[in-house]
Amino acid sequence: MAATVHPKKVRLGIGDDAAVWKPSRSAESVITTDALVEGVHFTREGIGAEDTGHRALASNLSDIAAMGARPVLATIALGVAQPVDEHWILDCYRGIARLAKRTGTAIVGGDIVSAPALMLSITVIGEVRPSHRKTRSGARPADVLAVTGPLGASRAGLEIALDRPDLGIDPRFASALRAYRAPEPRLREGLRFGALRNVHAMMDLSDGLSTDVRRLCAASGVGAIVDRDAIPIAESARALGDLVGLDPLAYALDGGEDFELLVAVAPRAFPHVAKRYVKSFGRPLHRIGTVTEGSSVTLRNGERARELVSAGWDHLRER
Amino acid sequence: MAATVHPKKVRLGIGDDAAVWKPSRSAESVITTDALVEGVHFTREGIGAEDTGHRALASNLSDIAAMGARPVLATIALGVAQPVDEHWILDCYRGIARLAKRTGTAIVGGDIVSAPALMLSITVIGEVRPSHRKTRSGARPADVLAVTGPLGASRAGLEIALDRPDLGIDPRFASALRAYRAPEPRLREGLRFGALRNVHAMMDLSDGLSTDVRRLCAASGVGAIVDRDAIPIAESARALGDLVGLDPLAYALDGGEDFELLVAVAPRAFPHVAKRYVKSFGRPLHRIGTVTEGSSVTLRNGERARELVSAGWDHLRER
Repeated sequence: MAATVHPKKVRLGIGDDAAVWKPSRSAESVITTDALVEGVHFTREGIGAEDTGHRALASNLSDIAAMGARPVLATIALGVAQPVDEHWILDCYRGIARLAKRTGTAIVGGDIVSAPALMLSITVIGEVRPSHRKTRSGARPADVLAVTGPLGASRAGLEIALDRPDLGIDPRFASALRAYRAPEPRLREGLRFGALRNVHAMMDLSDGLSTDVRRLCAASGVGAIVDRDAIPIAESARALGDLVGLDPLAYALDGGEDFELLVAVAPRAFPHVAKRYVKSFGRPLHRIGTVTEGSSVTLRNGERARELVSAGWDHLRER
Repeated sequence: MAATVHPKKVRLGIGDDAAVWKPSRSAESVITTDALVEGVHFTREGIGAEDTGHRALASNLSDIAAMGARPVLATIALGVAQPVDEHWILDCYRGIARLAKRTGTAIVGGDIVSAPALMLSITVIGEVRPSHRKTRSGARPADVLAVTGPLGASRAGLEIALDRPDLGIDPRFASALRAYRAPEPRLREGLRFGALRNVHAMMDLSDGLSTDVRRLCAASGVGAIVDRDAIPIAESARALGDLVGLDPLAYALDGGEDFELLVAVAPRAFPHVAKRYVKSFGRPLHRIGTVTEGSSVTLRNGERARELVSAGWDHLRER
């Protein structure tokens, strides 16, 4: 991502009343804000300080990726509980700064305040050429729905970190813990899709496939059929499901925070797009279903089909 | 401020992965983030929900004003404690929305999360022509230091709201409560100063004159002499000081959150700038001192002079 570093863009960084940058002439600017609170979105038992910082920035960068944009700069509002744990704060900042540097995101300012719990609110500004900007609302009937990677690992990792620390040393689950603690925003993939006119809609998978497919369909005024057997389930989620007696599909459908991209691609272009994707990124682009007319979003399992219901994590254990 | 409304600039508002806007071709963009936490920065006893929203946005807009910029858009991260007080949240949002509309600031997105206390983090994006951008670092020896209005009312209002609610109905203190609860960011004034080449440096007074003059001097590599008798003390702060037996100057020097602008103006231009200011805004521009060589910042009282010490509110009661 070296090409995305824009140190010249920032005219004035931390230290004045506000930071200043020069937007690119031909680009639109995009903005996204995400907040994380200790005890609500993370616990210090489940994730280290550096990973917390990484995750917080990664979830914002994932939104930037989903627009087909590249990140430019970020501000951080940090709420710090008493007694102040300076090591935690410095490590958290290091996690933010490392990912920021690697993705060409300048940290230009923010605010540090006292708070009853650790609280991290990050705003990221990105840029995109108007013709490359993707939204959730462009999907058309017959488009292929596809995702950029296997799903469910992040939720499996969270479950292991919180409830089954004994599994943390099992090599089968290393990738799950990594997916939860240090997710990789799909910036290069988002930029690639942004440049392709045949990619009609795009969003990032932050709340689980079941919720996010419905959102994309609602925004586009379409329906969809998702093929149960085509959903790529992460190996580690499969292994954890087998171990705890839960259908591993639940992690992929309802787990959330995988930060892969969901795209709707013109059907005739899909084979070529998928082929180029493998060649560029060394991973397959997973076709999971088809956009339809109407507004019904169904999960097809061979001959059977049922409404695909948005379900959060709380629902998971009851399935 | 009707002329600053840019609905056309926002290409995509709330509802997608990120909001999108088109920056002005000739402008630089500026960004500032401020966070407020219940129990730290405000209590529900001291300030209502709508005023809390207004204040949170106003403090950000004040930073935008201090750059000579105009606001374009904002995102809001809201942390909400259990049980959720929907009325409070709606009223708070109304306070933000009203000030946003009046100042041409589009609310384009944000995040609502659970939190152990009410928490409000706002990011505002503004724009400024490069030639109009003001910073803290341009003050030169012999410049006139001036402030846009009387100081100390906000702190007096906070003290009344928290410690002396019995004074709340006294008409002498109505302006203090208003200054604390609904401060007015000096956007028009900031834009005016931005357009004047003879205004060499500018910042907003958020942490008290004693702290902020030192900051401006440090950023500019200069010193200053501030004339004690020239500091404009708000009538309400004077009245409260008399009542509680505190030197009213303390409110003006160390109180903070007045959100007036501090400017350094070329000495030969100052009379003209001040005259035009009165004509435009119907209020005087208060000359409070002079920029000097060196790094010493002193408070002059007739023949005597002492180092002007940065002092926060905690220090106030011990004076």
